[in-house]
Amino acid sequence: MDFAHPARVLDLLDRVATFVRDEVEPAEVDHRRAVEADPWAVPPVVEELKAKARAQGLWNLFLPSESGLSTVEYAPLAEAMGRSPLAPEVFNCNAPDTGNMEVLHLYGSQAQQDRWLKPLLDGLIRSAFCMTEPDVASSDATNMAATAIPDDDEIVLNGTKWFSTGLGHPNCSVVIFMGLTDPTAPRHAQHSMVLVPLDTPGVTIDRMLPVFGRHDEPYGHGQVTFTDVRLPLDSVIAGLGRGFEIAQGRLGPGRVHHCMRLIGLAERALELACVRATRRVAFGKPLADLGGNRERVATARIAIDQARLLVLHTAWKLDAHGLAATRSEISQIKVAVPAMALSVIDMAIQLHGAAGMTDDFPLAAAYAAARSLRLADGPDEVHQDVVARLELKKHRP
Amino acid sequence: MDFAHPARVLDLLDRVATFVRDEVEPAEVDHRRAVEADPWAVPPVVEELKAKARAQGLWNLFLPSESGLSTVEYAPLAEAMGRSPLAPEVFNCNAPDTGNMEVLHLYGSQAQQDRWLKPLLDGLIRSAFCMTEPDVASSDATNMAATAIPDDDEIVLNGTKWFSTGLGHPNCSVVIFMGLTDPTAPRHAQHSMVLVPLDTPGVTIDRMLPVFGRHDEPYGHGQVTFTDVRLPLDSVIAGLGRGFEIAQGRLGPGRVHHCMRLIGLAERALELACVRATRRVAFGKPLADLGGNRERVATARIAIDQARLLVLHTAWKLDAHGLAATRSEISQIKVAVPAMALSVIDMAIQLHGAAGMTDDFPLAAAYAAARSLRLADGPDEVHQDVVARLELKKHRP
Amino acid sequence: MDFAHPARVLDLLDRVATFVRDEVEPAEVDHRRAVEADPWAVPPVVEELKAKARAQGLWNLFLPSESGLSTVEYAPLAEAMGRSPLAPEVFNCNAPDTGNMEVLHLYGSQAQQDRWLKPLLDGLIRSAFCMTEPDVASSDATNMAATAIPDDDEIVLNGTKWFSTGLGHPNCSVVIFMGLTDPTAPRHAQHSMVLVPLDTPGVTIDRMLPVFGRHDEPYGHGQVTFTDVRLPLDSVIAGLGRGFEIAQGRLGPGRVHHCMRLIGLAERALELACVRATRRVAFGKPLADLGGNRERVATARIAIDQARLLVLHTAWKLDAHGLAATRSEISQIKVAVPAMALSVIDMAIQLHGAAGMTDDFPLAAAYAAARSLRLADGPDEVHQDVVARLELKKHRP
Amino acid sequence: MDFAHPARVLDLLDRVATFVRDEVEPAEVDHRRAVEADPWAVPPVVEELKAKARAQGLWNLFLPSESGLSTVEYAPLAEAMGRSPLAPEVFNCNAPDTGNMEVLHLYGSQAQQDRWLKPLLDGLIRSAFCMTEPDVASSDATNMAATAIPDDDEIVLNGTKWFSTGLGHPNCSVVIFMGLTDPTAPRHAQHSMVLVPLDTPGVTIDRMLPVFGRHDEPYGHGQVTFTDVRLPLDSVIAGLGRGFEIAQGRLGPGRVHHCMRLIGLAERALELACVRATRRVAFGKPLADLGGNRERVATARIAIDQARLLVLHTAWKLDAHGLAATRSEISQIKVAVPAMALSVIDMAIQLHGAAGMTDDFPLAAAYAAARSLRLADGPDEVHQDVVARLELKKHRP
Repeated sequence: MDFAHPARVLDLLDRVATFVRDEVEPAEVDHRRAVEADPWAVPPVVEELKAKARAQGLWNLFLPSESGLSTVEYAPLAEAMGRSPLAPEVFNCNAPDTGNMEVLHLYGSQAQQDRWLKPLLDGLIRSAFCMTEPDVASSDATNMAATAIPDDDEIVLNGTKWFSTGLGHPNCSVVIFMGLTDPTAPRHAQHSMVLVPLDTPGVTIDRMLPVFGRHDEPYGHGQVTFTDVRLPLDSVIAGLGRGFEIAQGRLGPGRVHHCMRLIGLAERALELACVRATRRVAFGKPLADLGGNRERVATARIAIDQARLLVLHTAWKLDAHGLAATRSEISQIKVAVPAMALSVIDMAIQLHGAAGMTDDFPLAAAYAAARSLRLADGPDEVHQDVVARLELKKHRP
Repeated sequence: MDFAHPARVLDLLDRVATFVRDEVEPAEVDHRRAVEADPWAVPPVVEELKAKARAQGLWNLFLPSESGLSTVEYAPLAEAMGRSPLAPEVFNCNAPDTGNMEVLHLYGSQAQQDRWLKPLLDGLIRSAFCMTEPDVASSDATNMAATAIPDDDEIVLNGTKWFSTGLGHPNCSVVIFMGLTDPTAPRHAQHSMVLVPLDTPGVTIDRMLPVFGRHDEPYGHGQVTFTDVRLPLDSVIAGLGRGFEIAQGRLGPGRVHHCMRLIGLAERALELACVRATRRVAFGKPLADLGGNRERVATARIAIDQARLLVLHTAWKLDAHGLAATRSEISQIKVAVPAMALSVIDMAIQLHGAAGMTDDFPLAAAYAAARSLRLADGPDEVHQDVVARLELKKHRP
Repeated sequence: MDFAHPARVLDLLDRVATFVRDEVEPAEVDHRRAVEADPWAVPPVVEELKAKARAQGLWNLFLPSESGLSTVEYAPLAEAMGRSPLAPEVFNCNAPDTGNMEVLHLYGSQAQQDRWLKPLLDGLIRSAFCMTEPDVASSDATNMAATAIPDDDEIVLNGTKWFSTGLGHPNCSVVIFMGLTDPTAPRHAQHSMVLVPLDTPGVTIDRMLPVFGRHDEPYGHGQVTFTDVRLPLDSVIAGLGRGFEIAQGRLGPGRVHHCMRLIGLAERALELACVRATRRVAFGKPLADLGGNRERVATARIAIDQARLLVLHTAWKLDAHGLAATRSEISQIKVAVPAMALSVIDMAIQLHGAAGMTDDFPLAAAYAAARSLRLADGPDEVHQDVVARLELKKHRP
Repeated sequence: MDFAHPARVLDLLDRVATFVRDEVEPAEVDHRRAVEADPWAVPPVVEELKAKARAQGLWNLFLPSESGLSTVEYAPLAEAMGRSPLAPEVFNCNAPDTGNMEVLHLYGSQAQQDRWLKPLLDGLIRSAFCMTEPDVASSDATNMAATAIPDDDEIVLNGTKWFSTGLGHPNCSVVIFMGLTDPTAPRHAQHSMVLVPLDTPGVTIDRMLPVFGRHDEPYGHGQVTFTDVRLPLDSVIAGLGRGFEIAQGRLGPGRVHHCMRLIGLAERALELACVRATRRVAFGKPLADLGGNRERVATARIAIDQARLLVLHTAWKLDAHGLAATRSEISQIKVAVPAMALSVIDMAIQLHGAAGMTDDFPLAAAYAAARSLRLADGPDEVHQDVVARLELKKHRP
């Protein structure tokens, strides 16, 4: 067993962490003000930072074919980026574009890659992912109501999707749509994934959804209706009926990334809590010397470290043994990490008093982000069930 | 021991609850849309509902001198109002006006009552309370930096306050300001409370603070600076140096009201959870039949009932034995009830899936409201300390 | 609403509490030593204390027909008795005899009452209750495998029961046995309750069961086998097939008693914790001034007070509205109170350091007792399900 | 990063795990019966198993100089041994002998090693460790009252120690005593460690302490008084005043061992829970299909895996970077692992119903063992404080 990162990873980690600390975090306040003034535009600082990061080679690190990094090697970099809500985009490592790029890289045709993957890798456009639906429990994928029906040399899309994150971004040009193609096919061959340019006729953005009171401008979480949207058949990714297969492949690394970013966010919250606790004075003492505050700091440290190790191990196992062998772990991190992050962030908010609830600190927004990850991509309960079924199976009579 | 409410209370409770269910809750969606369109105006429906409620005698029920209700008798009515964020204003029972009216009723001069209490009781104006400060830990009241210094026949106010809820409301006309008058006086006779018309020169509203991403329009949580604000000495409530005494008297019933409203909010969340759990289907079953959902419903029911009884007992003790004898209980409910409400609301959100995070349901906003009450009016930790000190005192050597 | 106890209850409470503090608690150490020396004998101090309590009229207070006390009036007395594991027997208010006496009082024939109820009320004999079985999940009563089959003018009992508390006591003379009489009868008319003198041929005590390492001598938790035990038909209580009906009636007050005793135990643990926290010194400070200890004391106080009010309200509702209307509440207290007691006792143990794990303090034994009540008389999960079903029913489509 | 164990470790792990499953676990029932019959004797099966294990080379694996295993390499073996309370002794890897052997190996003189280390390594004798005292808070080591005063060529010991685990074992021949030698010396050079043959005049075993109702025969937790115990000066380990230094060195690997054993115990509890959940039927379904039981299984799996990774990382860091760099981690595992084990074991008990409280399953005893580790070797609170201080230090102004 060796818990040390290799030298190249340590070097990249140092450079990413430094960039985040020296360039990205100080830009947060300006970014927030720019967004408050003009919510659905890209604040100029973002493009400046992107250019700088790319110039330093800190670009597309998430994609093994680009960066040469395995999942477990990219993981600490994702953590470093997770400290700031701006950072992932700066390094072109933001969801859902990362997942979409992976899909295009693994399953896209040459034409699809040329048209969509290239500008995504260059950070020129952005994309969204249209899977969740408002009228059915999306935790049970067999509920999906949207359709993707071939008609001659076209594919016709119908249905309403929501929580398509990034849909409001001015650069969002394409979405990946998932719909039911053949309900008579075997359970995991019924759905297709289709690339849909956002300006295709029949695509209507109904509204941007508030998530715990936030629209997360300029990204947004969109609700979008597809009404007889017609596209050439070659818009289908990898062929009809392969939607689930692709969705599965997209899951493993994606969850590791999400979770590592959340760990970075939790680290930042703990850091802010420690800074506050050692400087703010009440009843004649720094908060760190009052009541159970020290215990809470310790609890947070322990929780973060456990969660990180769980994710790193999952990443390693995914690399070493593949997705099928890592199913329990991937669901485990999906349950464990958001819960951990919420408890750490909530503690940090409490230590900041009323200020912690405002946007003077990044904590209230962090809480909303972490809370949404107890639901996004399957609620806790679905993942607990996966873990339990695999566990019980070992001991069935 | 008798846990039954008297007949008059049961009658009022029935009428308030019916009004909330039939008139207020159905108006919530329109209200939200009106606020989204014009955030800092009063949606017309509010004035309509106020008129209707007043016509039915459901008005100013919080104030014993108006309604003839004791604290424990008003408590279930406050719970019924807590179900909807709109309801308290509709019945003219909204914070902080209730507390301010109590202060004016108990401590105001005839002139102060004529000028401010009357229009408040008529629901014609609104008010705010300026106590918390951004630069010091307000949990420790001795930290207060704002000043209220008499100068001849005037009083001069300086300082910055924040989290003055209601300050953004178009009808907000007056605030009660608390400031340091004499640091050499005994610990609890150093501060004064002053009535400040909002249009007094030197009063500057700096900004409206987001609380967990929400501005709670049209009420708002204001940050406001007082710069050499000069008012006649008779703007002081009850005399110089009596600020703490007044603040204390304001606390007991106010906390009971807050907590009962939160219990109403938790009841609504549980009701929504049950409705969802019995209708939404996943994996072929209603959510109520999946995993631990039933256990969570039971846990919520038990938590709400315990919390309600704790608050009712506190209210009763406040009425029967006075504030000094009820100090522990008043801090106990301040700790117990928001924590309970958060857990119930969070459970309800989780049962609603992604929709629970949006404003299509009142749950996400309810969570923010409940969370802020773990900090407003003293963080949990300060109240736990009060409870612990009183408990340990019984057993000191 | 009136949370005050009536004068007669306050007088009894004062006398019981004083007796427990001055007579019973000081006898605990001697009692423990006597039991260590001779585990299955009754230490003489018990009979002395019983005589004293009876002489003071503090006897059989649990039984309304004897004491004139309603459930909610007896409740605070049960709490006072719960402080010491010895106290209930001293006042002739110990389980399961209380429940058995209630059953005999309500359902027993004159002959049954003469033979068994009288000496039980006099504290001359003790009894046990034989319901739970080792080989089936007793949480589901339809699983019961033991049989009580009429044969001419006799009833024949077969089966194995366990967790018959009190079976090891030298004075235990009779058990109430529950068995299946007619599996073809309606669901709640299949079982019978039978009075079985312990010396009846065919009754074999297999062993005394350790509960978390303790045999709770001289009471014991027995496993007992009934092999073709024949008794006259008039040993059946209230008639064949009425077992469930009787068991139900026995439940309500019994759970209130159990829960109030647990609250008394939790109060004692909190008192011990406060005494320790204000006297024991580490790192130069009393434990009460270290870390989160004060917060834990506050948390305990709040949890106890909430639990007590929940039980008192349940008792009141049972008196005022009957068992059928109080079904949810009776399950609620069964879930809430042991969990509360465990957390308070565990906190007290932790504050006592290693000593808290020994029998130098009553805490480790208290923990075992409270933990067993998460299983006895139905596990938490079964009661949560009752609460949830009743809650969801209100909102079903 | 590489989470794989090397081949030699995997081979040993397979052999130890197989031995525990095939030889040790099946012997538990007989062992328990033997101990019940004759509590303070060594059941013959223990010596048989020891001989067998030794013959297979599964002996003294904990000691790097014997086994060639690093801390992180031994860790999974300790986990495998932790499944059964009998296993550690079978492999001669039981506390406190492991720690004592380490001390003798690292600090003992040749004579001390010949006299005590050799027979300990051969499993012929056992030892105890006398540090904790009844009258002071041992969490604060500066409280220690026992003395070890040199007098000419002798050292004179006085004081009372308790919780000396293993003191009741018939083979216990020697204890390591820690006492105050020079209160004027620097803080960490005041105490000495002394080897005391148990039959030295002046050594009196006062009693065996019950820990949560158990004496853990034939090991026992002893309270022992040293009255003017005189020993030659060469009984002191490593020299006067070096007690703390030695205690520190003993800590790191010892905590890793304790924690890994607890993880093994938690794994066994989870396994028992899964076996029960898939076989026991209530309400027509296996327990695994009822309520939140599956969620609880998932929660346990996640908690165990996180805890294991935290301990393995700590072990690795201890090996790679030494004790001083691993201080936070060593305290972290001390806090995290017992809490995790308690929650898993408690869940397993609940799933077993009343049987889980008895000794028919190893769960109730496991709970007591895990609970004691929240206090042994420093209570949670002390370790949380270590973690918090190191964390806050990074951010102090």
